[in-house]
Amino acid sequence: MKELVYLDHAATSWPKPHEVVQAMMDALQHAGANAGRGNHSMAIGTGRMLIRARAALAELFAVANAQDIAFTHNTTMSLNMAIQGTLREGDHVISTMTEHNSVRRPLEYLRRTKGIEVDYLKVDAEGQLDLRELEQTFKSNTQMVICSHSSNLLGSILPIGEIGGIAKRHGAVFLVDAAQSAGSVDIDVKQMNIDLLAFPGHKGLLGPQGTGGLYISPDLDLEPLMHGGTGSQSEYSEQPNVRPDKYEAGTQNTVGIAGLLAGVQKVKSLGTEYIRSHEWGLIQTLMEGMESIPGIRFLGPSIGAPRTGLLSFVIEGEESAQIAHRLDREYGIAVRAGMHCTPLAHKSAGTIESGAVRASVGVDTTEEDVGMMLHAMRELYGKR
Amino acid sequence: MKELVYLDHAATSWPKPHEVVQAMMDALQHAGANAGRGNHSMAIGTGRMLIRARAALAELFAVANAQDIAFTHNTTMSLNMAIQGTLREGDHVISTMTEHNSVRRPLEYLRRTKGIEVDYLKVDAEGQLDLRELEQTFKSNTQMVICSHSSNLLGSILPIGEIGGIAKRHGAVFLVDAAQSAGSVDIDVKQMNIDLLAFPGHKGLLGPQGTGGLYISPDLDLEPLMHGGTGSQSEYSEQPNVRPDKYEAGTQNTVGIAGLLAGVQKVKSLGTEYIRSHEWGLIQTLMEGMESIPGIRFLGPSIGAPRTGLLSFVIEGEESAQIAHRLDREYGIAVRAGMHCTPLAHKSAGTIESGAVRASVGVDTTEEDVGMMLHAMRELYGKR
Repeated sequence: MKELVYLDHAATSWPKPHEVVQAMMDALQHAGANAGRGNHSMAIGTGRMLIRARAALAELFAVANAQDIAFTHNTTMSLNMAIQGTLREGDHVISTMTEHNSVRRPLEYLRRTKGIEVDYLKVDAEGQLDLRELEQTFKSNTQMVICSHSSNLLGSILPIGEIGGIAKRHGAVFLVDAAQSAGSVDIDVKQMNIDLLAFPGHKGLLGPQGTGGLYISPDLDLEPLMHGGTGSQSEYSEQPNVRPDKYEAGTQNTVGIAGLLAGVQKVKSLGTEYIRSHEWGLIQTLMEGMESIPGIRFLGPSIGAPRTGLLSFVIEGEESAQIAHRLDREYGIAVRAGMHCTPLAHKSAGTIESGAVRASVGVDTTEEDVGMMLHAMRELYGKR
Repeated sequence: MKELVYLDHAATSWPKPHEVVQAMMDALQHAGANAGRGNHSMAIGTGRMLIRARAALAELFAVANAQDIAFTHNTTMSLNMAIQGTLREGDHVISTMTEHNSVRRPLEYLRRTKGIEVDYLKVDAEGQLDLRELEQTFKSNTQMVICSHSSNLLGSILPIGEIGGIAKRHGAVFLVDAAQSAGSVDIDVKQMNIDLLAFPGHKGLLGPQGTGGLYISPDLDLEPLMHGGTGSQSEYSEQPNVRPDKYEAGTQNTVGIAGLLAGVQKVKSLGTEYIRSHEWGLIQTLMEGMESIPGIRFLGPSIGAPRTGLLSFVIEGEESAQIAHRLDREYGIAVRAGMHCTPLAHKSAGTIESGAVRASVGVDTTEEDVGMMLHAMRELYGKR
């Protein structure tokens, strides 16, 4: 029996596959040098590993040229690069109320400092946008549409391809936050008209913390957020205009990226279709097993509808933090309670005061894990 | 016998101490969750590890309040945060010709986009500034003095305390780039009047790539470079004004930081004084053993003078890249050749065309390693 039932995969996947741990150990021992910062064999070996990791990600997201993917520290850095690198004074942005603070806070910062305008579109109870409203929100100065592929609170999966088509028709740059979808929902940047794709390494892609990336369409001339050494064209006083160097100033997290490569390989060997259906099935079990709990309310898509591997809920008269606390202390079950860094989504869902409990599953979560959660929830809240 | 003689510690230290590798393994297995992003036991444990790492760094740099240290992706990110967060239109900056591109490129970017003014002070053959010239360069709008503690090309150690005193008298913010000194030269932010200290995790502090930090004086109100989720005050539409959260948006590299903590503990157990004298001794052996090579020229401090654990040199009539290549292929010795991301320092040293070869040692480099380098250099270039 596992010591811990870990149902917080939407924060970070855990435990990492043994292939990921092994790859990081190997990198620490054999590929320790800095890529692009030396001409000796080990530095060259490290450079090759980065090339392989970039190629694996490019294949996963149907990116034609792997050089259009830059590695980053985390999704937040990817989103800041995309948002701060694109928007200029007087620009208008369309975003949604399901965005994480990693989208909202850069936008509010630019609203204050550069006077950009932002509209956050509301979502319905199922976590979906009204696409007619989206169409009607465009203005002559709409520069960007920013949308999370899947809400980290509601679990809804947005029709990114359709939204991308609408953005394209209006000539707007389309940025997708794939924090909750990369690795478990199919993403094709070309087919979906995605210009910028921000993704984490440590969630659905099964890599370690400290990794993430940003796909940047070759049609965009994004201003870098960070300037510094690139190991290339050192004599230039500014960032060289070469990808991915332009967007990867400083030493990269090579050990972490070696782990990310192993994680992506694992995702590919399982297939995103398998992962999504595995996670969906577990969440259905959870919903069906918990719907009889008095006063419970599920957020986001109804039973049977598409969603990612997370479920947020509230129980009338119970504090969300206390539910999570009891699950942890009394049953060794790790879930998350609170705002999940997405206050507008809570506002939409009517849970801004109470917060919500979120249980989220991953590739190696089992029916037994979900069974433990159901058992605990029924014991604690089944008969009140 | 070692397979590889690794003399590229100034790029990244390698191999990492086994304590670092072990700490990362433990973190992957037992502290996988995200700090501050969940209320379950594992997330809390991860949070405690971050607190310990911050405290260890604060002690090392004599920082009174550990919350004034923010973790970053790398030194480049730390420097960009410091520079872009401080400078405004019309500001004047004093920096030096020994700076890395991670200082020069953000400055040149701000010169182009915000019209800041920059003076780069020249350094002499020993890699030292003229402090009278520094005094004379201040203007009424001098907002910042930026100086690397030690040149990554020349190995010279600058009198940071004196420079800090001068900056303070002129009311300028003092930013120190400790990329080549953290862990091997004593740093006391209070005594040295350092307002901002940017440091890497993966060089002298013996941690992994993907880690670094920035000390931010409590007197400064730095604008963050990145905005996003902090796990705190999620209802705020902008970054919460709480340290370190304000400067640490998004998921941190917890596995890497666990390794960094172990690295800092190793540095403390050895002592920076021991490390500096060990590395200095090895470089002296290298200089004394190589000075008879026809046409060789050492850059930076003379034999016997203080310097960090690196030595750059050129040989008349020989290409630097070729020297490094032969050492690697024929002797398994890893050194670095090229511009080292610091073209102005090369301009100072008269090596902008040729580049230079840089050999750099670390805590576990031995006399035997240095002997191998001397043997190879004498065989290759001793009799021409």
